[in-house]
Amino acid sequence: MRTIHVIGIGAGDPDHLTLQAVKAMRATDVFFLLDKGEVKADLTDLRRAMLAEHLPGGSYRVAEARDPERDRRAGGTAYAPAVDDWRSRRAAIYEALIAEELGSDETGAFLVWGDPSLYDSTLGILDEILEQGRTEFTYEVVPGISSVSALVAKHRTGLNRVARPVQITTGRRLAEGFPEGVDDVVVMLDAHQSFRAYAEEDLEIFWGAYLGTPDEILVSGPIAEAGPRIEELRAKARERKGWIMDTYLLRRQD
Amino acid sequence: MRTIHVIGIGAGDPDHLTLQAVKAMRATDVFFLLDKGEVKADLTDLRRAMLAEHLPGGSYRVAEARDPERDRRAGGTAYAPAVDDWRSRRAAIYEALIAEELGSDETGAFLVWGDPSLYDSTLGILDEILEQGRTEFTYEVVPGISSVSALVAKHRTGLNRVARPVQITTGRRLAEGFPEGVDDVVVMLDAHQSFRAYAEEDLEIFWGAYLGTPDEILVSGPIAEAGPRIEELRAKARERKGWIMDTYLLRRQD
Ligand SMILES: C[S@@+](CC[C@H](N)C(=O)[O-])C[C@H]1O[C@@H](n2cnc3c(N)ncnc32)[C@H](O)[C@@H]1O
Ligand SMILES: C[S@@+](CC[C@H](N)C(=O)[O-])C[C@H]1O[C@@H](n2cnc3c(N)ncnc32)[C@H](O)[C@@H]1O
Repeated sequence: MRTIHVIGIGAGDPDHLTLQAVKAMRATDVFFLLDKGEVKADLTDLRRAMLAEHLPGGSYRVAEARDPERDRRAGGTAYAPAVDDWRSRRAAIYEALIAEELGSDETGAFLVWGDPSLYDSTLGILDEILEQGRTEFTYEVVPGISSVSALVAKHRTGLNRVARPVQITTGRRLAEGFPEGVDDVVVMLDAHQSFRAYAEEDLEIFWGAYLGTPDEILVSGPIAEAGPRIEELRAKARERKGWIMDTYLLRRQD
Repeated sequence: MRTIHVIGIGAGDPDHLTLQAVKAMRATDVFFLLDKGEVKADLTDLRRAMLAEHLPGGSYRVAEARDPERDRRAGGTAYAPAVDDWRSRRAAIYEALIAEELGSDETGAFLVWGDPSLYDSTLGILDEILEQGRTEFTYEVVPGISSVSALVAKHRTGLNRVARPVQITTGRRLAEGFPEGVDDVVVMLDAHQSFRAYAEEDLEIFWGAYLGTPDEILVSGPIAEAGPRIEELRAKARERKGWIMDTYLLRRQD
């Protein structure tokens, strides 16, 4: 039976790798590397560097494929369907990789950014392939350090306050309103700095970009002061590098 | 200047340790181990085993203290104050450990269960000590694999569904009502199996106890079926071991 490891590799710092991840990598015959286009080349490079460092013998194969482009223009209610279609196209590519590159008793691996459980489609895609029933395999998930854990660690703060809840959501959702019933909210996938809508509120923001990498930027403070600084730093960094990955925690003051 | 490492050690599996955690451990002179009483002895043993495995030279010191007992009877609105008082008593103990056991240029470390950002008081305590201004140090946080990441990895599912939010909350909060605005809810610190109040709803539950340890138990399924099975397994396991640590994800079906 084919086995697939879905390995969380952490959110940017190569030392986010867990011992479990390193062991799973060493037990892998074929790594599936999905190239997401130029802007994400840095992220693929990090994966290659991890392989070079932890599997110096080079006793593995790498199977590469180009990840299909997502239709990023689709907004509003079109968002979920656009994702579904993109996911199906990806499923076809992943299935071909598994079926063609992996021998029947071999082990393959996907190196997933951060933690595979947060805003990542790999598990959904593997389930979709298994449901189709054409290609058989089992899979295991190795948890990883998410950008959320990395963010709050760098800011030396907790996700939740004592005995209180925390919500993790997207920029798109935050733009629709501040989540109900929580005063601590982590925002991911925010291309539009949706925190700006809350500049007048009594919120503290803990923001981080390129966390764990040499380009890391951290800003925190009351949103009225920190917000404009983040906007400026973010625009500059994005211009300089050509892409940005950022996430933040909003904390309502008592 | 004294430095303190607050190191997330993962939620039970020794291989949850990150490379960053191992490096931080190797750069530590004194480990502060807080003994939380008999029932948690297993958790202290795991820390000792990690030290023995990753610092075989034994070139470190261990400073032990007894963590004060929390007044667990305090319920309802008394919860937060009881925690505060307990935290202050812990702050005094932590401060004494740092002031008395750590030389002025030395590095100390707390080995925190799971990820230090989730329902853990270490960062709050260190901030409290720093605010008092009597004992000086700087501290750094090393993120860890939380029991939340471990839970969903073992169940091979995501925390959130595509483009949707997830909330992390406590059993106490869940008992007050299902959180608003979310269909995916992770529950921690639940001594009363608060999920039972939702047995009639169209919810799926992904439950795990002693995650990452040899005693790990996993159950998932529609809450009407899985709920009673969890109650039974939980009661038996708790009886056998004398304590239980469990967490679960509730997912409302569309
Ligand atoms: C598709 S999601 C994947 C999240 C990933 N699975 C994780 O656990 O962090 C991508 C989003 O994660 C956040 N992110 C990932 N890595 C980051 C980093 N190094 N610094 C800041 N944000 C990051 C950003 O909000 C980005 O939009
Ligand atoms: C005080 S909180 C600490 C959480 C920890 N910082 C983390 O990141 O997992 C303790 C709660 O975490 C959950 N927990 C911690 N370790 C666990 C494990 N190995 N299996 C199941 N639940 C666990 C339980 O809900 C428990 O009540």
